[in-house]
Amino acid sequence: MALDATHDPARRSWVDSANAAGCDFPIQNLPFGVFRREGEEPRGGVAIGEMILDLRAGLAAGLFEGAAREAAEAASGPALNPLMALGRGVARALRARLSELLWADGAERRRAQAAAGLLVPMREAELLLPARVGNFTDFMASIDHSGRLGAVARPESPLPPAFRYLPVAYNSRATTVVVSGAPVRRPLGIARREDKSVGFGPCAALDYELEFGVFVGPGNAMGEPLSMRQARERLWGYCLVNDWSARDIQRFEMAPLGPFLAKSLATSISPWVVTADALAPFACPARAIEPPPLPHLDSAENRESGGFDIALEAWLATPSLREPHRLTATNFRHMYWSFAQMLTHHASNGCKLETGDLLASGTTSGPEDHARACLAEINLTGPVTLPNGETRSYLEDGDEVIFRGRAEREGFVPIGFGECRARVLPAASWPQE
Amino acid sequence: MALDATHDPARRSWVDSANAAGCDFPIQNLPFGVFRREGEEPRGGVAIGEMILDLRAGLAAGLFEGAAREAAEAASGPALNPLMALGRGVARALRARLSELLWADGAERRRAQAAAGLLVPMREAELLLPARVGNFTDFMASIDHSGRLGAVARPESPLPPAFRYLPVAYNSRATTVVVSGAPVRRPLGIARREDKSVGFGPCAALDYELEFGVFVGPGNAMGEPLSMRQARERLWGYCLVNDWSARDIQRFEMAPLGPFLAKSLATSISPWVVTADALAPFACPARAIEPPPLPHLDSAENRESGGFDIALEAWLATPSLREPHRLTATNFRHMYWSFAQMLTHHASNGCKLETGDLLASGTTSGPEDHARACLAEINLTGPVTLPNGETRSYLEDGDEVIFRGRAEREGFVPIGFGECRARVLPAASWPQE
Repeated sequence: MALDATHDPARRSWVDSANAAGCDFPIQNLPFGVFRREGEEPRGGVAIGEMILDLRAGLAAGLFEGAAREAAEAASGPALNPLMALGRGVARALRARLSELLWADGAERRRAQAAAGLLVPMREAELLLPARVGNFTDFMASIDHSGRLGAVARPESPLPPAFRYLPVAYNSRATTVVVSGAPVRRPLGIARREDKSVGFGPCAALDYELEFGVFVGPGNAMGEPLSMRQARERLWGYCLVNDWSARDIQRFEMAPLGPFLAKSLATSISPWVVTADALAPFACPARAIEPPPLPHLDSAENRESGGFDIALEAWLATPSLREPHRLTATNFRHMYWSFAQMLTHHASNGCKLETGDLLASGTTSGPEDHARACLAEINLTGPVTLPNGETRSYLEDGDEVIFRGRAEREGFVPIGFGECRARVLPAASWPQE
Repeated sequence: MALDATHDPARRSWVDSANAAGCDFPIQNLPFGVFRREGEEPRGGVAIGEMILDLRAGLAAGLFEGAAREAAEAASGPALNPLMALGRGVARALRARLSELLWADGAERRRAQAAAGLLVPMREAELLLPARVGNFTDFMASIDHSGRLGAVARPESPLPPAFRYLPVAYNSRATTVVVSGAPVRRPLGIARREDKSVGFGPCAALDYELEFGVFVGPGNAMGEPLSMRQARERLWGYCLVNDWSARDIQRFEMAPLGPFLAKSLATSISPWVVTADALAPFACPARAIEPPPLPHLDSAENRESGGFDIALEAWLATPSLREPHRLTATNFRHMYWSFAQMLTHHASNGCKLETGDLLASGTTSGPEDHARACLAEINLTGPVTLPNGETRSYLEDGDEVIFRGRAEREGFVPIGFGECRARVLPAASWPQE
């Protein structure tokens, strides 16, 4: 993917907070999201430092023309799907224009600063789900995750039989994808207890899974597969994903049809969608795999730049440990399969993908101990001890899990994803009616 | 569920074709669907004999009042979701009114016959998908299907470990649910070949699965489970489901996350939604199971009338065998789990169900040899020989699979589901771009 002026590390914004060291949203990022202020309709915006650029305000001020205007109009409603449907090129035009407008030394600075209500403090806004997620597919792209957990169950053959031939996946539940900040209720479910009895009650092994996700831009027609090139162009933008997992329920239910209620309790995503363009400087070669991918899952472009070098972290706060403690530090470059391969595989049977469909990587564990990206893996060497002496095998009510992601590369301004966080609520009581 | 005048076997319609012996759509049925005539907008209708009652025409003629009118308005658009969202009571009011209007001896006969354009010949209409299916969940409710196939893989323990404790299920793909008549393309996919190599190509083991499905009426809020009573009231209406299955792809991909591309190629459903009220006379006790269901999956109502006595059949026509040959004759009363149990289980972790969600039973095999409801089961005793001497292990291009369903009970007029049929097209070629 071509780099352009929007990636120029010398570019700084007149929005001061965007230039702070460690800021997730410098002018080089410009992720899209949906926000609402009290008494106003939900609308699309772009994160810049600690502010949100209100795309409706930008349209009202006449700041956009041509494709940039088309993009801003598509993004000014309560979900980004219309923008995603236009494909990456149109979003790129808006990105270029926003970069000009927000650039401290840009010719358009004065016009932008004069636009009424263009910037909204992020702390005054409610961040909403960025897209209507019609379908949510969860992959299992990390060989370290699969291998580490598989080694417990099948030491002689830890990986699933198909793992090295295709990106293993399942359809998960789209109706329970929620935005960061929404609390997550501990599920009720059926599991085998320690005394071997089977019973129904609150999940006793609630886990997080640190994942990375992509939104599909334009979809495909039913019955029409996508080539690797076509698939790559449809990977619209990225977010952090917490695929909450009820391990006791999962263990009991999943043979042979896969995880079901263990996963549909909730899936939290970060509110800002970082575009493929913003991530272009952080692309890296897809992992070299053996056997090599089947021809339809292979391309020179994918070998050269199908992966991403993105640091991903999971942190835990508890009711008595306010300062979060880091549980996981991994990197997306470890993934065995790339998103282009995942999407190509997904559509290879003619399955129809739709704009706004969310594909998640699966747990993003890497080879190092600190890169174990869920408690089920961390637990293999015993419970976690927190700085205040508490221990955790699995999550307790009131615990809060916080994900962060950050892409860095020499010669470029680092960008981040904001947080994906949620607190665990106690289980519901059973309806008495 | 209460029986009322709409179930009266003495009631005949002034639409003659509705009174013919063997007609699927007598006045006692009145299923809802969506149809389109050339040059007109899609709209809701009700099948009566060989005709469709156009609900918009009925509204225009002022035939409906109160709840019946509310229902007809909700059903007059391109999908029945708004009608389903109103719940069963509102649909029941419309059913009662339609029965009066179409009754040969009814006081409203003349008014109905005078209404312009009220009846449309079904053969002049295109039948469309009756609902927007946002989510499609496929269960595995037949112990005969699970046991028969499981005995091949695990003779010592044929049933999945959770089978007797919960209705095993997976999320399937909603975007590829299509209406009867739409052709189904043989999928491409990755499978292990006979020579043990792994390759990508056209599915070599395409199968049908004869299933029965239900549409969810009003949904639930995320985090709020449904009791058995609440779930039962949300089972809005029923259809036939062909869950096309690519067995070679399935065998290779499904460990451990379940079937994925083997199922998302297409799922065909019959166009008419037979309401819970129409099926009331054919309810039968849910199967007595051992161990008994966990308390939250049990209710007196379910034990008494959670099942359905519905004969289900699958037929095959081939390019050289025009007269269809019956492959399967089973009955839905054999199911181990009831739909009320399936829906209660589905929402038990707080998973949000939405109006128009489709839950399918899984392959509806019964204990008899002729009740094997997919080729994978039939194949266990060798390929099928057709009357013209052809044999089939799995489906070939050009084959057409036809499902029929019919409910009969002494003292009531039998009702049917119409057909769910589709022809197999050759696989797509891989995109060259």
